[in-house]
Amino acid sequence: MNRTRLDRLLGDTDTDGYLLDASQDDANQLYLSGFTGPDPFLTLYADGEIHVLVSGLEYGRARTEAAADTVERHADYDYEYGGREERYDMYARFVRENGVESVSMPPRGPVGTADALRERGIDVVVDDEDVLEEVRAVKTDEEIAAIRDAQHANEAAMRAAESLLAEADVAGGGGASSDAVADGDTSDTGDVDAVEPGTLLHDGEPLTSERVAEEIEVTLLRHGCALDETIVAGGAQAADPHDRGSGPLRANEPIIVDVFPRSKATKYHADMTRTFCVGEPDSEAREWYDLTERALDAALDAVEPGATGEDVHAAACEVYEAAGEPTFRTDPETETGFIHSTGHGIGLAVHESPRLSSGAGELEPGHVVTVEPGLYDPAVGGVRLEDLVVVTEDGHENLTEYPIEFVV
Amino acid sequence: MNRTRLDRLLGDTDTDGYLLDASQDDANQLYLSGFTGPDPFLTLYADGEIHVLVSGLEYGRARTEAAADTVERHADYDYEYGGREERYDMYARFVRENGVESVSMPPRGPVGTADALRERGIDVVVDDEDVLEEVRAVKTDEEIAAIRDAQHANEAAMRAAESLLAEADVAGGGGASSDAVADGDTSDTGDVDAVEPGTLLHDGEPLTSERVAEEIEVTLLRHGCALDETIVAGGAQAADPHDRGSGPLRANEPIIVDVFPRSKATKYHADMTRTFCVGEPDSEAREWYDLTERALDAALDAVEPGATGEDVHAAACEVYEAAGEPTFRTDPETETGFIHSTGHGIGLAVHESPRLSSGAGELEPGHVVTVEPGLYDPAVGGVRLEDLVVVTEDGHENLTEYPIEFVV
Repeated sequence: MNRTRLDRLLGDTDTDGYLLDASQDDANQLYLSGFTGPDPFLTLYADGEIHVLVSGLEYGRARTEAAADTVERHADYDYEYGGREERYDMYARFVRENGVESVSMPPRGPVGTADALRERGIDVVVDDEDVLEEVRAVKTDEEIAAIRDAQHANEAAMRAAESLLAEADVAGGGGASSDAVADGDTSDTGDVDAVEPGTLLHDGEPLTSERVAEEIEVTLLRHGCALDETIVAGGAQAADPHDRGSGPLRANEPIIVDVFPRSKATKYHADMTRTFCVGEPDSEAREWYDLTERALDAALDAVEPGATGEDVHAAACEVYEAAGEPTFRTDPETETGFIHSTGHGIGLAVHESPRLSSGAGELEPGHVVTVEPGLYDPAVGGVRLEDLVVVTEDGHENLTEYPIEFVV
Repeated sequence: MNRTRLDRLLGDTDTDGYLLDASQDDANQLYLSGFTGPDPFLTLYADGEIHVLVSGLEYGRARTEAAADTVERHADYDYEYGGREERYDMYARFVRENGVESVSMPPRGPVGTADALRERGIDVVVDDEDVLEEVRAVKTDEEIAAIRDAQHANEAAMRAAESLLAEADVAGGGGASSDAVADGDTSDTGDVDAVEPGTLLHDGEPLTSERVAEEIEVTLLRHGCALDETIVAGGAQAADPHDRGSGPLRANEPIIVDVFPRSKATKYHADMTRTFCVGEPDSEAREWYDLTERALDAALDAVEPGATGEDVHAAACEVYEAAGEPTFRTDPETETGFIHSTGHGIGLAVHESPRLSSGAGELEPGHVVTVEPGLYDPAVGGVRLEDLVVVTEDGHENLTEYPIEFVV
């Protein structure tokens, strides 16, 4: 944790304290408390100290694990499990006994707790700037090392995915593939389930998005990372940037593989996207890939301290716009072309500050951001390339060591 | 979704509508919208209809996937990405254009949105009862089937864990184990890293909690389930019910394995705990295991419609108390003995309504609950057994098909 930055930014709020009521699923909570509590608990920052209040069940672990100056448990406030009003009474006492009469809460803090504290005479102000997210945006060397480690695991997972694709047979193609089709048992399900020519095959079965995602996730687990959702999307599915992909994959069309795991040990994330094509893509997909590689390079070149997120986004947009592809800058309503921002900060949350988009502010050393231009159109499919970089004193360092190659 | 129950319970609130601002990570949101949006979005229930508002990036998927009557996107309100106040203006318009001037929000809804709507003249009331969680508590046949499927995947994972433990060698024990120790390279790390007698060994290396958890999680992935945190805790670690466990496992002491995966397809959870001992436990651990098996049976016997969660909890407590073990009923401050509730509802969230604890209300057909008594003391370790059951019209059905056997 960057304690100097924390003290400066949290000390700047107009209230006596900063209050979180959340579980470890909330990145602010994980950052401020350092505690991996599975159920919501309170963390109060006041007068430069961090105070944590947990249930008896969590007390032992919290005392060992939390990065807090004090750790208290419900029993210290004579609270027994059950009553809602009594729980809020305890929360108000916890706040007051730490010398606090007014608290800031982040915008996504729970309204139930906010209103209950207000009813008990404590002033609760929404911190619209989400100052803790701003604190989190600038990483320490230790945090950068954690993200780098997660990206190394990610590289292993991407290799596993690429290998599965590279080793796939193609239905209706040459010898082995035709055999595989002939071997396939399509008799009881009829024609609808027959394997279409061009379908990728693995061990004689259609190679699906789900199967590739499983290989990625198993590889991540073997490398100490977890991931619930992976994007492996081909064809028209790839034209929707948030479609996770499903069903059989096909040759000769772009397949987007976007992997964003979290280290189990450090809880920090990584993020990488590659687009692969098994066999030759058509000329438009090839052109899209080359454009996207140029957009990636242009955006990466723009990442340095003092540049804004908007500058980096503009660098990617300009490459696409010069080639006549629509972007949100030329047409805010477009549903094809470059239809998302160029990137986002990453850390304890997959998406966090800073943004690389129109209106986004200055980059600082220690910011860790994805750079991920892409093109989308259901008629062509989708292409996206994504690296993960850290802003340094004099530019940036790319944390991603994975080749950029389309055809596998 | 149980639409009749939804309409009855949500229709009972004193406001015009019920509003959620959350991502798919929130079980209420997933339930009401049916949409797996990775970023927070709005869902409004009003006049028996469900209205969803998403960003342009999610619109295509939301139209296909959401269980909503209407799906709108930000562009329908001329909102472009960026401005915070403009976003709240859009939210207020979305609420009003659906004929709503007052909304209920669950206690954990975001205070930023609640306050912003209030500033815009919309009355926001905290639904302290969390009515949607009450709706969710009673499962349809389809939901029960989803949980049953997840529990089957869980059984496969538990078998994988048990096999790893059963096949482990023991350092300092017999032939193979001694060899394994002799093979171990301890020369560069010195005595502190030497394998202690009694340590479990797998392929000549200490078998760790992390290694068993990895096996569980890989097995779950192969069965279409995901899980970020698994408990594999032996020795004193097992005495803390929320300790996930780490480091080498040992023979002759209880090892708690608690697995609570989520189906990737349905998003419903399962939950199961077994306690294993490699080799013979001491007499106290054996007594604890037998007591806990009796507590489990007694609690299961008590699960039927009309019984309260408190009744079920009491049934487990009575077994322990009769044997002289402390419970929260006999000593609210105890840190050893039976130091948690007997169980919890499970569904889209791992922990949800109803509770099996002091003060908990009546069970109804369709409730799905864990039953998980246990005993804890750092001097002995921990023992817990957990089955997953559904309350039926005339009792309950156990969704867990896994033997209860201590020594492996």
